[in-house]
Amino acid sequence: MKRGKRFPWSWRDEPARNIDRYIVSIYNKKDKQTEKGGHFVQEKEISQAVIRRMPRYYRYLGELLDAGVERISSNELSRRMDVTASQIRQDLNNFGGFGQQGYGYNVKYLHEEIGKVLGLNERHNIIVMGAGNLGQALANYMKFEKHGFVIIGLFDVNPALDGMTVRGIRIHMLDELERFCADHQVDIAALTLPKERADAIANRLVGLGIHAIWNFAHVDLKLIDHDVVVENVHLSDSLMQLSYNIVKQKRAKGQTE
Amino acid sequence: MKRGKRFPWSWRDEPARNIDRYIVSIYNKKDKQTEKGGHFVQEKEISQAVIRRMPRYYRYLGELLDAGVERISSNELSRRMDVTASQIRQDLNNFGGFGQQGYGYNVKYLHEEIGKVLGLNERHNIIVMGAGNLGQALANYMKFEKHGFVIIGLFDVNPALDGMTVRGIRIHMLDELERFCADHQVDIAALTLPKERADAIANRLVGLGIHAIWNFAHVDLKLIDHDVVVENVHLSDSLMQLSYNIVKQKRAKGQTE
Repeated sequence: MKRGKRFPWSWRDEPARNIDRYIVSIYNKKDKQTEKGGHFVQEKEISQAVIRRMPRYYRYLGELLDAGVERISSNELSRRMDVTASQIRQDLNNFGGFGQQGYGYNVKYLHEEIGKVLGLNERHNIIVMGAGNLGQALANYMKFEKHGFVIIGLFDVNPALDGMTVRGIRIHMLDELERFCADHQVDIAALTLPKERADAIANRLVGLGIHAIWNFAHVDLKLIDHDVVVENVHLSDSLMQLSYNIVKQKRAKGQTE
Repeated sequence: MKRGKRFPWSWRDEPARNIDRYIVSIYNKKDKQTEKGGHFVQEKEISQAVIRRMPRYYRYLGELLDAGVERISSNELSRRMDVTASQIRQDLNNFGGFGQQGYGYNVKYLHEEIGKVLGLNERHNIIVMGAGNLGQALANYMKFEKHGFVIIGLFDVNPALDGMTVRGIRIHMLDELERFCADHQVDIAALTLPKERADAIANRLVGLGIHAIWNFAHVDLKLIDHDVVVENVHLSDSLMQLSYNIVKQKRAKGQTE
């Protein structure tokens, strides 16, 4: 593989420019063909498939950091992550490369840069709609905070839960939602409520200016405003995929019928 | 589009043969080129991307069934699911088509057949490793049972939980695991425990004959036996994808910096 293809720029002297280029490329979305060799890079539409892999890179690099590893080659990262080295280089080149031939990747730097790409350098306040088991499980899970995701309130309609707290986070009644959103910056709403209520609540949240929804309700949300970012976690779908693969493997082994 | 391509067989007179063909095609995995026009179909490797979409078809068809809809065209299904009609036909053709030109899809039949493809006509017994908030949330979630996924026990190391029940399902201590697995058929183990413990427990489960793991621990499992089917639910990764899309949209709108 040619050097120019793998590492379009050298970052040795200018580590801070990498993410800036990325930001610039987003700013200049309509301007497909920009200056070459300058501060602008050619705009690429980054596929959600690439984005889905980024948190995994971030996780592995975090583990390497914790283990005191300072730099890593794409081959070694490839071995650990069970992804081809070429895939790693392609994925990271979407954001400007981050690597340097003969040196490999600086673990701390790459971890930070991917964190910025994923928006983990900003704080995200979350409210959880539905204080049932799943809602409480999310509120109890402390590790989200490490990455800047802070749950600041839960909401439910069950009066028995009014004023109770989960790990110090208060459960509010649904009719307090408007006031709460006026008093607090809310970036993300997690929906852990029955699917029948999901659309109405989601549109109410969007009306309050919340443009990101982490949806656990087993339904594809029908939103009036299409600028809302939705990330679905459909647990039943996940179980069904598992089940498909179980059946497939059993049949391959000839264990059934 | 040519008729032959869209609907390779007519199912009017033989609705039961469809899934049989699929099974046969799995049985004859090594036999890539099989009889045409007979009971065998040409073997296709079905991508996980297709499989990921099947639970969604199943969900929509279930909703249509509940609403009393008996048949639906791929165009109408396309409109409701926000997927192209051509994508729907391609996806379903992986399993033999299920459709009929001029008639569309028989909702009940298609729902049942996709259910079979996904293994939902079989019962799957699940144990949950880790009876913390998330483990209890899974045990409390009744809708999995509707699709044949039945949680039959939880396991933990916290003696304070010993003998307690969640929705009638007992929490056992970890040292009872071997005996429990000898006494019960266990098809799937859900891991809702700290990532540090996940590999050891997963390999212990595999040693007990459990070959399917629904992994909520924030780690890619390192399993000794590679025949194990693993389905990951990485909640932090999902939040990070959401966060990426938030940042991307903010930048596109020019709201930041």
